[in-house]
Amino acid sequence: MAEILVVGSMGYDTITTPHGKKEDILGGSANYFSLAASKYAKVNVVGVVGEDYKDEDYHLLKSRDVCVDGLQRVPGKTFKWEGKYEDDMNEAITLHTALNVFEKFDPVIPDKYKNAEYVFLANIDPPLQMKVLEQVNKPKFVALDTMNLWIDIKLDELKEAIGKVDCLLINEGEARALSGEFNGIAAAKKLAALGPRAVVIKRGEYGFILYCEDQFFIMPAFPVEHVMDPTGAGDTFAGGFFGYLAKTDQELSLSHMKQACVQGCLMASFTVQDFGVNSLVNLSWEDIEKRQNDYSRVTSLD
Amino acid sequence: MAEILVVGSMGYDTITTPHGKKEDILGGSANYFSLAASKYAKVNVVGVVGEDYKDEDYHLLKSRDVCVDGLQRVPGKTFKWEGKYEDDMNEAITLHTALNVFEKFDPVIPDKYKNAEYVFLANIDPPLQMKVLEQVNKPKFVALDTMNLWIDIKLDELKEAIGKVDCLLINEGEARALSGEFNGIAAAKKLAALGPRAVVIKRGEYGFILYCEDQFFIMPAFPVEHVMDPTGAGDTFAGGFFGYLAKTDQELSLSHMKQACVQGCLMASFTVQDFGVNSLVNLSWEDIEKRQNDYSRVTSLD
Repeated sequence: MAEILVVGSMGYDTITTPHGKKEDILGGSANYFSLAASKYAKVNVVGVVGEDYKDEDYHLLKSRDVCVDGLQRVPGKTFKWEGKYEDDMNEAITLHTALNVFEKFDPVIPDKYKNAEYVFLANIDPPLQMKVLEQVNKPKFVALDTMNLWIDIKLDELKEAIGKVDCLLINEGEARALSGEFNGIAAAKKLAALGPRAVVIKRGEYGFILYCEDQFFIMPAFPVEHVMDPTGAGDTFAGGFFGYLAKTDQELSLSHMKQACVQGCLMASFTVQDFGVNSLVNLSWEDIEKRQNDYSRVTSLD
Repeated sequence: MAEILVVGSMGYDTITTPHGKKEDILGGSANYFSLAASKYAKVNVVGVVGEDYKDEDYHLLKSRDVCVDGLQRVPGKTFKWEGKYEDDMNEAITLHTALNVFEKFDPVIPDKYKNAEYVFLANIDPPLQMKVLEQVNKPKFVALDTMNLWIDIKLDELKEAIGKVDCLLINEGEARALSGEFNGIAAAKKLAALGPRAVVIKRGEYGFILYCEDQFFIMPAFPVEHVMDPTGAGDTFAGGFFGYLAKTDQELSLSHMKQACVQGCLMASFTVQDFGVNSLVNLSWEDIEKRQNDYSRVTSLD
């Protein structure tokens, strides 16, 4: 089984949805990603936290055999995000961001992580994403996510970073902003022209688009009637996607990428059913297998 | 092969999209529906037009073997709608509606239509939809569409009409307005509780939800990169859906309804590729078969 390296944010979120408000709960792209991907394969995390980061939150990852030796603990406070969702649970409204220790984050990849075959660059500053790439030894597969902030203020660096990876994993709003195309099909084609072999657009409750080798694979989301909190769904998608690729570690064919997208889609469907990482923490393999069967039925003509 | 009866609007539309503006082009739910459904089965239309309705527009339907004997031609002007689409091609913005002769429309079903097995009540006034139902002889399958106007001003009558049909075919915005639920899954369940055995929610570029016998079938739209004009996509969906049901005329099983939805989805994908009914007019069976194969590939894990 191959190993995964993820570089992303670790933090505490305060989230308001139509179903309630939770303060300072565990969040950050690297946490969501790692909890999902570690269901499938060995995950190594690089990130930064402050002095207030709780021991129990380290232990949560360690209990999943996620290696946290690459986490930097530095003086200051951990990254915090506050956001809310109104009726449209597909779109977060940011109320407040405190970068804190994340502001001076300088990712250093421990030697023992440098041979990881699968590398996920979560939504950090594009120059830092490139800095990670310079430190690793020819991974088999690298994907990158981003966020509107970097599209707004670091567009050139972001496009350069996208040109260096195998896959762009991005949500629909970001895909529109980055491509200038509202239509998902047109957006996927334009983003692929930046260089990556594959583009995955995550569409929230509408599922995803995979565009790879001039072929589209488009599927709906797993039907979730009560979406409690969509935070982290995209990072969880990436976690299931990478977890599947690393676990199976086969040639990266189109068919294999399709399967990986479906795993991402299923994992994301769990995340949105509860606040924060709660669903992921309690998830069993039986839950995943059952959902896979249910998803097949929901999308089958038979 | 069974026959279809459709009761709906016939009119002229003025449409502005990011790709241009067309004035007074053929439109109306009954036209879109009939041009799509007549690819599969015999269609009979009931509607009303004014003195300005063009002969060539009658002949277009007649050339598809659509029976237009149920069309009333009365003094006055034909129904007109003017609308525009901005970046989000999933949502029409109505600029102007002139009901004209449609305002006093009183649907009279000719005797020879009364035994039609498949009845589609397009988005006309709910009391008129019920009036149609009173005139027909035990059809096998009746479906109803509606529009925001009736949700706003005739909610009770609309709910009563929905309770009398087998299937509700509705777009996502209307489903939200009618159910009070933003989430498509929750909306479908609430709408089914009004009585129909099946609920189909049309989601524009995101595809559709079928909810029937406590089961969901959810699929994406066929990928169309350049959406020229989405007007009539929903009525065309209904046309493909009904056409398939009438052509095959089998027991209305869940599996059969799924196939009908896919046909609706494919037909809608043609409509949006050109202004008005242009794509439907020029459509061949080879086009439809090719698209069906392409759709299978786009939604297949293999």
